[in-house]
Amino acid sequence: MANNIPALDRLVDEFRKMPSIGSKSAERLAFYVLGLDEKEVEGLTQAISDAHDKIHQCSICKNLTEDEVCPICKNDKREHGTICVVEDPRDVIAIERTHEYRGLYHVLHGVISPINGVGPDDLTIKELLSRLNDNTVNEVIMATNPTVEGEATAMYVSRLLKPLGVKVSRLAYGIPVGADLEYADEVTLSRALEGRTQL
Amino acid sequence: MANNIPALDRLVDEFRKMPSIGSKSAERLAFYVLGLDEKEVEGLTQAISDAHDKIHQCSICKNLTEDEVCPICKNDKREHGTICVVEDPRDVIAIERTHEYRGLYHVLHGVISPINGVGPDDLTIKELLSRLNDNTVNEVIMATNPTVEGEATAMYVSRLLKPLGVKVSRLAYGIPVGADLEYADEVTLSRALEGRTQL
Repeated sequence: MANNIPALDRLVDEFRKMPSIGSKSAERLAFYVLGLDEKEVEGLTQAISDAHDKIHQCSICKNLTEDEVCPICKNDKREHGTICVVEDPRDVIAIERTHEYRGLYHVLHGVISPINGVGPDDLTIKELLSRLNDNTVNEVIMATNPTVEGEATAMYVSRLLKPLGVKVSRLAYGIPVGADLEYADEVTLSRALEGRTQL
Repeated sequence: MANNIPALDRLVDEFRKMPSIGSKSAERLAFYVLGLDEKEVEGLTQAISDAHDKIHQCSICKNLTEDEVCPICKNDKREHGTICVVEDPRDVIAIERTHEYRGLYHVLHGVISPINGVGPDDLTIKELLSRLNDNTVNEVIMATNPTVEGEATAMYVSRLLKPLGVKVSRLAYGIPVGADLEYADEVTLSRALEGRTQL
């Protein structure tokens, strides 16, 4: 930007670093900030600092929380015998939105990805294994993403878990509800055929 | 979001208030912030506060600046006899990008819009008129947007300026460079015909 306003340039740069924010959007966001009043700016910067300062990982499931142990792990009404393993805290939010799952979670914070230099030790796999020590867990659901890396991570973790005598399952593959068969890719479609259920 | 993390919810809410940021984007931005280190968060919040604290309107042209008078108004090499009137500071940036215009600017900070309760007194029209008092300005280019309100504002201002003996011009209408005639709307196309130039 040839605008001769260093403070504005710096703000635009900060916004441009954010995911899926291009130059135009960054400019729009910066002008939005300029239009805020004192109190609103304070609210925005406070929310950013607070989120960063207060939120950390749950000591048990590694999901994000403001407490030592997250509300899901603390909740006695959840089924403590089932653990759903996900890549990312956002996946927990997505699954919670279904209101179908009543068990606990374990957040890996990534997937095994040699190309990005992420090995098993960079994930919270060790912490997952230690949760199985007291034999209270009877099923682990691998809910990593259906990508090459997500698959490989699910396979890797399940091989570590099976010798411990725990049931390991994987999310079902198939056509997404509401989607058009015509536009489904071949892999998804063949998985949907493989996994067909009797009516 | 059913995530039980108030600090995260608050941050997502702050981002969702921003223009063209929906729930999904707001969530993505919030997780981006959580992934920043101490120094990066400091940089982001500082940029926001700084932009808000340091940037204000130029006392002459009402464009945004960190100084009392903006670098364009201060620049002796610009043609001080020409003023380009725009709606918004972003329009100044857009015109400066062309590197074609060497005159000064005047930012109205809006357009006359009775439906939104914006009258002439809510804009910086009075300040524009006072800039013409010393007879150093010989042309005012109305560069408001080609919308109904932009047009009306250009007409209103030009009627105030003409009695002062200053030349008032308007940006040319026509087909945008690189566009397809086929997809040009009728109004634009008829304006392009009207304004045709000899080759």
